[in-house]
This record gives sequence, structure tokens and C-alpha cells, in this order.
Amino acid sequence: MKKQAIGFIDSGVGGLTVVKEAMRQLPNESIYYVGDTARCPYGPRPEEQVRKFTWEMTHFLLDKDIKMLVIACNTATAAALEDIKKKLAIPVIGVILPGSRASIKATKNNRIGVIGTAGTVKSDQYKKMIHSKDTKAIVTSLACPKFVPIVESNEYNSAIAKKIVAETLRPLKKDNLDTLILGCTHYPLLRPIIQNVMGDSVTLIDSGAETVSEVSTILDYFDLADDSKSRTHIEHNFYTTGSTQMFHEIASEWLDMEKITVEHITLGR
Amino acid sequence: MKKQAIGFIDSGVGGLTVVKEAMRQLPNESIYYVGDTARCPYGPRPEEQVRKFTWEMTHFLLDKDIKMLVIACNTATAAALEDIKKKLAIPVIGVILPGSRASIKATKNNRIGVIGTAGTVKSDQYKKMIHSKDTKAIVTSLACPKFVPIVESNEYNSAIAKKIVAETLRPLKKDNLDTLILGCTHYPLLRPIIQNVMGDSVTLIDSGAETVSEVSTILDYFDLADDSKSRTHIEHNFYTTGSTQMFHEIASEWLDMEKITVEHITLGR
Repeated sequence: MKKQAIGFIDSGVGGLTVVKEAMRQLPNESIYYVGDTARCPYGPRPEEQVRKFTWEMTHFLLDKDIKMLVIACNTATAAALEDIKKKLAIPVIGVILPGSRASIKATKNNRIGVIGTAGTVKSDQYKKMIHSKDTKAIVTSLACPKFVPIVESNEYNSAIAKKIVAETLRPLKKDNLDTLILGCTHYPLLRPIIQNVMGDSVTLIDSGAETVSEVSTILDYFDLADDSKSRTHIEHNFYTTGSTQMFHEIASEWLDMEKITVEHITLGR
Repeated sequence: MKKQAIGFIDSGVGGLTVVKEAMRQLPNESIYYVGDTARCPYGPRPEEQVRKFTWEMTHFLLDKDIKMLVIACNTATAAALEDIKKKLAIPVIGVILPGSRASIKATKNNRIGVIGTAGTVKSDQYKKMIHSKDTKAIVTSLACPKFVPIVESNEYNSAIAKKIVAETLRPLKKDNLDTLILGCTHYPLLRPIIQNVMGDSVTLIDSGAETVSEVSTILDYFDLADDSKSRTHIEHNFYTTGSTQMFHEIASEWLDMEKITVEHITLGR
């Protein structure tokens, strides 16, 4: 059981920001990743459809005998975590709770911002989670529907990215936030630009990086962490429903790995 | 179940550093705390005896119907966590794994230091935990037997504290550490002095603060977090086997609370 892989699922390449942290914090673990690039973005889709797509990715990885599932996508977490967690025998973790928790830990003035997809913001789950723990916190949410397409098209370092981020985040500047949750796993690729727009006084919370700490906690709690001395069995596999070439390009750059196995898969036939 | 208190146990007042974080990150939770001040320090005691004392505190809190137990003491975690976790039906969390995890997350040069009591350092558990996750990390441990008595006698701001900390930590200065685990819950009270001695380039890991994030994770995972809107039932109780006056003095200053109920108890009769 301990040597089985941890499964990660996302609407596209965004969950790779979570995988990067997982490779750093949990270098002994094998990782299987599914990016549903062909149907990305999930943000504007109806909740019911997002839930269906998320289950399709989940079933694909369950067939590969994963020991734990990480829903490395905020929109999918909002739509499907509760349902999937209830029905699977292995531990299932989403990205919304870890990000909420970290924002409460980080804030000093109790003014927390959340940026995410339309679906995530509409679900209002960050606000609900934060308020279930700390009723004093003032939470402001903003949907940033243009951010995911920028990242998926590998334009996240471009001048146009800077312009769009600055324009989109303008309404948040007046709220005196000291903490901003990057409530979409695609957004850490835009982190330098977002930090620059919001200013150094705002702590950015990478919900994905925080999720990895929780993955580690749960692995240990259930005695599932791979503690074998030899690392010869470690294997990382990436699956995409879209272009393997585009996926490979972003993944190898973002993860700083030359050799990446990317396989094309079809879901929901 | 959700409204029951979380239990915290420590050899003395050190675990209050964990409680302070718990009150900040989990303001909706009731806290029951036992400090075995009369038998503090645990550090130099034989492992078997520490395990016995830790079980005595645990039984005291189980009688008060806690929903979760936090062993907020590194020496007790090293000696008794595995045994207690195995035997209780409620979740049990120690402080060593969270500190280990956070050090791997924080380090950039893979050189991690650990300071703790003689018992904690002798158990070598930090090194074992860190290496089970990341074999590349180089871990240096140092026992600091004089630190706990300084804190328990409320001398943690004194000139003598500064002198002792500087002398004790000198051997670590040559190791090029970028991360130092405060592997004893008493040490965060000496944090400004320790940071000053080690320099700003060293990230200090407060194992207690990290533990609270894991407490929050486990509470949510098992759906035990108190999410009630009204906070009227919240109750914090402190129990000590030693002087209630001394305990009250340190607790009210450290927690910045005027009204604290401290009750004297006897264990292991």
C-alpha cells in the first residue's frame, strides 16, 4: 500500500503547481496526474458537469490503484470533494480547506481576499470554510475568469498577462487586505505578477502548496507514507486529455524536469 | 462530539505555546490543558517514566470527555505517542511529525538543526522522521537541558537567559543551517533570543504552531471541528500539578488573557 502512487487531478495544467510542491516536500512518493486539458476551463461550467468530469478522472486513477486522491483543482473541489470523499475508501483531499486554514494562520488584520474561477467564487466555499473557523474574518471574493486561459496557453510570463492581472485585481486594492488566497491552482504560475500588483504587504496563500502539507499529514496519520530506503520504484506519470506536446512543454518547464512521460487519454466516452 | 474540548498535555507550561496558536487558529474550540509542572522537566527522565506520566495526564483528560488529544510536549511525544495513538479511539497528535514536515518545507540548503531536551535528542526521532521523508537532508541535533528550567521559572526574558542561550547554541553556528526546529514546546518563549543568536538567515520552526495546523486538518478530516455559530459554550480549563500561582502568572502573560481558570490536580497517586 505504502508504495502506491498518490493521484492528482485537475482541469488542466494548474494542478502541476501542487505536484511541484509534492515532489519537493514528499520526494519519496510516486505521483500520477490527470489534467483534463481538453475540457478546460472548468470554471464557467455548471456544477453538475464539473462533478461528472471529476468523477471520470477519479475512476481513471482508481483503476491505477492509487493510495490517496488529491483534487488539485478548486472548481472541482467545490463541486465534487464532498461526494467523492464520502464514496471512496482511500483518503481524498481537496484544496479549499488547506487554503482557508492557511489564510487564517497568516492574516493579522482579519481581511482576507480570495481569487478564483467563476465556479469557485460562486460556490462561496472559501468564505464558508473561513467563517466556520473564524467568524471575525472579513472575506472578499473576486472571480478572475481570464487567468486560467492565460496559463493554459503558456502565456503566463507575457506582457498581456501583466495587463490582464493588473486590470482584474484592481477592485481588490481598496479593501486593505493583508492576505490573498490564490484560490485556483493555475494562479501560482502568475504569482510574481499578482504579488507585484497587490504589493509586498499582502501575503499570497498558495492553496496547492498548503494542500501538500495536509497530504503529508494524512499520509502519516493513516501510516501510508512511503518510507522505503530505496527509491528505485518511484514513478511519476502524467495523463492529459488534450495536447501532449503543450502539456509536456508547460510541465517540463514548471517542474524543471527534462524527462516527463505524458500520455494522451480519453475520458467520458 | 463537535462541541467537546480538545485536550493538550505537557510536562509544564511549554505546551501553552501550542495553546496560544490553537486559540488564534481555532477560536471556536474549547481547550483543556494539563501541565505536569510538579514533575517537570521530563527531558532527563527515563523513557518508561515519561510514558507513565503521559498516560496519567491522558487518563485525566479522557475522563473529561475530550474529542482529540494533543501531546504538546516533544519528550512525551517521543516516549508515548505511538502507544497512546494505538490505544485511544479519538485522534491523537504529537509535535514531532509536524515540526519535521515544516522543516522540510522550509529548508533550501537541506541543512536542518534540531534543539530539544536530552530525552527528545536521545530518541533521535526528528532525524528519523525527516529522513523517512527526505533522505538528502542533513540533520544536526543538540540537547539544551538548561532551556526548560529557564522558562518554567519565568526567567525567559532575563539577561541570564540570553547568556545561556548564546553559550548553548554556539556549536550549531558552524553548521551552515538554514532551518532550526524548536523541538521543545517551551522554546518559543525564548524565540527572540534564539533568533538573535542564530541570525536572521535561519528560519525557526515552531513545532507547536505547526502542530495546530495539523490539529485543524485532522479535526476537519474527521468532521470534528466545532462549526456552531454561537460561541457561548466555549470553555478553556487549565490544570497543573504544581503551583497554580506560578502557572497563572506565566499563562496569563503568555496567552495575554486576564481571566484564566487554573485548577490544581494530583496525578499518579
